[in-house]
Amino acid sequence: MKLVRHGEIGDEKPGLIDGEGELRDLSGVLRDLCGPALAPAALDRLRLIDPETLPMLPPETRLGPCVGGTRNFIAVGLNYADHAEETGAPIPSEPIIFNKAPSCLSGPNDPVILPKGSAKTDWEVELAVVIGTRASYVHANEALNYVAGICVCNDLSEREYQFDRGGTWTKGKGCPTFGPLGPWLVTLDEVPDLKRLNLWLDVNGERMQSGSTGTMIFDVPQIVAYLSHFMMLEPGDVITTGTPPGVGLGRKPPRYLQSGDVVTLGIDGLGEQRQEVVAFDDWTAKVAAGEPTN
Amino acid sequence: MKLVRHGEIGDEKPGLIDGEGELRDLSGVLRDLCGPALAPAALDRLRLIDPETLPMLPPETRLGPCVGGTRNFIAVGLNYADHAEETGAPIPSEPIIFNKAPSCLSGPNDPVILPKGSAKTDWEVELAVVIGTRASYVHANEALNYVAGICVCNDLSEREYQFDRGGTWTKGKGCPTFGPLGPWLVTLDEVPDLKRLNLWLDVNGERMQSGSTGTMIFDVPQIVAYLSHFMMLEPGDVITTGTPPGVGLGRKPPRYLQSGDVVTLGIDGLGEQRQEVVAFDDWTAKVAAGEPTN
Repeated sequence: MKLVRHGEIGDEKPGLIDGEGELRDLSGVLRDLCGPALAPAALDRLRLIDPETLPMLPPETRLGPCVGGTRNFIAVGLNYADHAEETGAPIPSEPIIFNKAPSCLSGPNDPVILPKGSAKTDWEVELAVVIGTRASYVHANEALNYVAGICVCNDLSEREYQFDRGGTWTKGKGCPTFGPLGPWLVTLDEVPDLKRLNLWLDVNGERMQSGSTGTMIFDVPQIVAYLSHFMMLEPGDVITTGTPPGVGLGRKPPRYLQSGDVVTLGIDGLGEQRQEVVAFDDWTAKVAAGEPTN
Repeated sequence: MKLVRHGEIGDEKPGLIDGEGELRDLSGVLRDLCGPALAPAALDRLRLIDPETLPMLPPETRLGPCVGGTRNFIAVGLNYADHAEETGAPIPSEPIIFNKAPSCLSGPNDPVILPKGSAKTDWEVELAVVIGTRASYVHANEALNYVAGICVCNDLSEREYQFDRGGTWTKGKGCPTFGPLGPWLVTLDEVPDLKRLNLWLDVNGERMQSGSTGTMIFDVPQIVAYLSHFMMLEPGDVITTGTPPGVGLGRKPPRYLQSGDVVTLGIDGLGEQRQEVVAFDDWTAKVAAGEPTN
């Protein structure tokens, strides 16, 4: 299944993409795509529904982040061998983890707002995992049983905040709009091989990132199992699993996002995102003037 | 006001402590102490209630973490000048932040479970701040307007996971039961001076930590304002603001928690916590045998 959340920011309702690629409304069946609705049995019940019986929604409907109720938004750093090389960092011997503030989650096509005074906002296309069932001390060979599905994530990053403000990377990772997630939460039965997914990201139509989950250092089951030994993972938790080469920081000279840039990104079988970049002051002016911001 | 959450784990209901120190049930008034219920106007409405009209609850009632719906559980590291000295770290020029998994939140008197195989679980008494209203780019002189109240937090820490497993401190900070919070969420009108609160922590009755919020490097308004420039803070978010000297890691030789230890801790005017420490395997055996675990 390809599940979505549609509607106004903060008031998203569940939906799905049918076999013809049409958006269908699940709000008559389910309150939201969160918590217990992400468990295997709950997903199996959704599979029994004939999508043709669900109301169709116009294609221009806004999509929100493809999962609700996220409390823990975890990211894995330097998890692609070729990206670690690009940054000059050694290959990690254990997954490097940090947090993105859950309040940074946004829809796949929502604007990306450059933080006030930011000069170094960067892109990172990533494969994200959504937890479906509580996971504590699980083994890698059973870890996928605890996963509701996977999706595209842009792990936006302010490099000055991340590296030059003391302490952990968290400061540069959780600014508002720094976590576009979706368009779809894709259940694993639709993914032929988690280790052979191509990822790409363009800025203004120019290819910046291109990679494959085949060069991940720690794969999805290993990451879920590893994290579950340090914390209890809960339904709706999101784990974004690292980025392939081609980030702005790694370019010579480095290149960062400017107001007006358009970022597009996608992963095989998981759909595409499109974000217009807007400076904080332009954004607040737009909001104050009552202009459409989406 | 001194607000609490009482009842079974995961099903806590709101309550308050009346002028006589009795526990009163607010569940007829409020569904939970979370989200919009933490806003200033909502707290003002609670102030209008005569506690004597509320059902009294037995004093042995379990208390849960004193706020619900927490998505972001942020911690500030090395924020007491005397503790930074104890660890040999330099005084930070900006707040050092890291995350605790929200799933580690527990009641103030719930057992602390040592993670599987853990040898270095340590204690940290801290003053925690609970956000009441969305805060983004706020100034220090207005930051307290965004705070619902403050409480005691034990920022339990597994030092091997924190320091020796690569990457950020997060790995050692979010194990299940590593975030006892409460007993009470105390609104700021009950706190005469945020900068003159004594904190203390005992292990088996022996004083280990003793300090004052007067030696904090960054004070509460500065921390809230600072964080709000890197992420949007939301109602129910918890910020624990660092620990004074006396942690197990800083002792010569270092001392860590053992199964059977009892930790007690408190802060002036904010109440006390008491935790029995139990090894993971003993805990699971207890649960399997159906013994009371609380």
